[in-house]
Amino acid sequence: MSMTSTKDDVVALAQRLLACPSVTPATGAVFAELESMLAPLGFTVDRFIAGEAPDGPVENLLAWRTTGAGPHFAYAGHLDVVPPGAGWTSDPFAPDIRGDLLYGRGAVDMKGSIAAFVAALSDLPDDLPGTISLIITGDEEGPAVHGTLALIDRMATRGLRPDFCLVGEPTSTQRLGDVVKIGRRGSVNMWITVQGAQGHVAYPHLADNPIPRLVRILAAIEAEELDQGTDWFQPSNIEITDLEVGNPAHNVIPGQATARISIRFNDQHSGASLIERMKELAAVEGGTVEARISGESFLTQPGPLSDLVTAAIRDVTGVEAELSTTGGTSDARFLSRLCPVVEFGLNNATMHKLDEAVAVQDLRDLQRIYARIAKRALRPA
Amino acid sequence: MSMTSTKDDVVALAQRLLACPSVTPATGAVFAELESMLAPLGFTVDRFIAGEAPDGPVENLLAWRTTGAGPHFAYAGHLDVVPPGAGWTSDPFAPDIRGDLLYGRGAVDMKGSIAAFVAALSDLPDDLPGTISLIITGDEEGPAVHGTLALIDRMATRGLRPDFCLVGEPTSTQRLGDVVKIGRRGSVNMWITVQGAQGHVAYPHLADNPIPRLVRILAAIEAEELDQGTDWFQPSNIEITDLEVGNPAHNVIPGQATARISIRFNDQHSGASLIERMKELAAVEGGTVEARISGESFLTQPGPLSDLVTAAIRDVTGVEAELSTTGGTSDARFLSRLCPVVEFGLNNATMHKLDEAVAVQDLRDLQRIYARIAKRALRPA
Repeated sequence: MSMTSTKDDVVALAQRLLACPSVTPATGAVFAELESMLAPLGFTVDRFIAGEAPDGPVENLLAWRTTGAGPHFAYAGHLDVVPPGAGWTSDPFAPDIRGDLLYGRGAVDMKGSIAAFVAALSDLPDDLPGTISLIITGDEEGPAVHGTLALIDRMATRGLRPDFCLVGEPTSTQRLGDVVKIGRRGSVNMWITVQGAQGHVAYPHLADNPIPRLVRILAAIEAEELDQGTDWFQPSNIEITDLEVGNPAHNVIPGQATARISIRFNDQHSGASLIERMKELAAVEGGTVEARISGESFLTQPGPLSDLVTAAIRDVTGVEAELSTTGGTSDARFLSRLCPVVEFGLNNATMHKLDEAVAVQDLRDLQRIYARIAKRALRPA
Repeated sequence: MSMTSTKDDVVALAQRLLACPSVTPATGAVFAELESMLAPLGFTVDRFIAGEAPDGPVENLLAWRTTGAGPHFAYAGHLDVVPPGAGWTSDPFAPDIRGDLLYGRGAVDMKGSIAAFVAALSDLPDDLPGTISLIITGDEEGPAVHGTLALIDRMATRGLRPDFCLVGEPTSTQRLGDVVKIGRRGSVNMWITVQGAQGHVAYPHLADNPIPRLVRILAAIEAEELDQGTDWFQPSNIEITDLEVGNPAHNVIPGQATARISIRFNDQHSGASLIERMKELAAVEGGTVEARISGESFLTQPGPLSDLVTAAIRDVTGVEAELSTTGGTSDARFLSRLCPVVEFGLNNATMHKLDEAVAVQDLRDLQRIYARIAKRALRPA
């Protein structure tokens, strides 16, 4: 099916971004494409490479346009996508419209959102005071070590500090606008290891089996109730995700046993407080804990920013958005250090799946919603 | 150091066997060597190959000599050895006497014992009535599927049925003769598996983590007291020997978790009764059990056979032997189906280790002990 579209039509913009293969980490063409959209709109575009192997190099793009004194409203997102996998109906990097849907890897997560924001820029009054910026990384789906974090550093260097930030992640679930995220749980992985002494099964008194001690630690962890949830967060949750002994010999008592746990936690905790607690539980049986914090939790208290987002959604779609903190982590965990952050974008039903697709009408509605959000952020009603 | 020795000297016999590399499964030269020792002594020697891959083929040797009507006394052992490993002071298959010790892989486990038994045969009176047999396998240290079991079948085919059996395994611990084994614990390995449903750590309600259920099963198994031991056996013991989930993804709740346990059990249990009990404990949490019985327990009640062994030890060495059922499994588990079995042999301190060695004096003493045992077995005092 062919479409009639002008250069700035949201569907045409989305197609241009989708046509650039950009499996994480994204570099080059897809950034050039976005730059070519923003420069004509009066944006200063700063593309830069950050980091080195193994977690880099990563391409990032910072763009901003200032029209007199006023608030600074930032839109954040990413141009990288997860690998398409095999089995697509059409080429994942040859955007294809079939029926009401535009297919392509990144259609909802999140090139479609970026296209909607760029299209929305053309709908804004010329005299809107303040600064609009785009904080776009090529590594959100990967290690994310040299992506948004590097962009935050870059903004500081340039004296740019947003007052509000909208992250365009696909938060909608059943219909566009039904869910807006005002926070995210934190995430920490830990490795609990118990050392023993290897020996022969026939002579257990000469060995020290670490497994019963690990089992007791894990039973204590399972019995641990971290909290009962808060007004805005579900209860923090611990999952034991792996057990590893690696003992192929049937007659050998192993010398070491390790369990890995993953905790998703709300704002009652920090990564550090949870590591401390798990160390206490492990120490009872002589276990030790190694940990890696993937992200702290954050919460943007419901208020002016979430209100203006839900109002814009209501105006365009009639949908009453639910404020949520569920799901995995996103780069909002980093941006929340700068300013209040809210996440809102397309329907996530096909995100990371085969035949990822966005409804063409959702793109058009999202463009209108984003335009209203930007307008009200810079010129409060 | 050189030794003066006659053809039938126990040290020379041991050296001849040790000089034949025979890492399990043993075949060929080492059996030809033993055959060449037994044939001149009037033994009928039946060497045969049993089994196919993966647990075969295995070479075995059955030898017997009958002198008129009388009891049948059998000596059982193995010519295979465990791999020597790297780091020996001298070539493990070039027997070397240094100081008071004869070094070589198999010196105590158990070519030295076989040499002592062959040497003892020359010390027996010519008119001793009855049958003496040797039941020698080339696979005791390996799978042991086509070794002593095949020899037992072969004996049945030939109408040979021992009244007593002495297994020459190295049972002595501090000094020759201190320990005689009258039984062995049984051994069974089990794999306990819990199935769940894989999912994302951020959405545990959509997954079913099998690990907490496995942890509860293992806690129940740890709390299980199988028995408190018997007159002749220590308490049965359960060891958890491995945990396996194999989940490399930090953010994924795994779909399956497995633990392996190894139970060494006394004559209060059978492999089947223990499998049944573990199935009950696993079923509480939806776990399933796979099992492999390595051997059932056996006990030769202290009596005439153990008495004549301990008396022979006392006569030669002055040592008062302890009757024991400790340690791993041996081929005595199979032979005990035929007749009363007692195990007695060299000092096991260096068995399976680098620089395995036997005291030359122990070989000479063991020859004298074995001669007394055989004599009294065939002609009770």
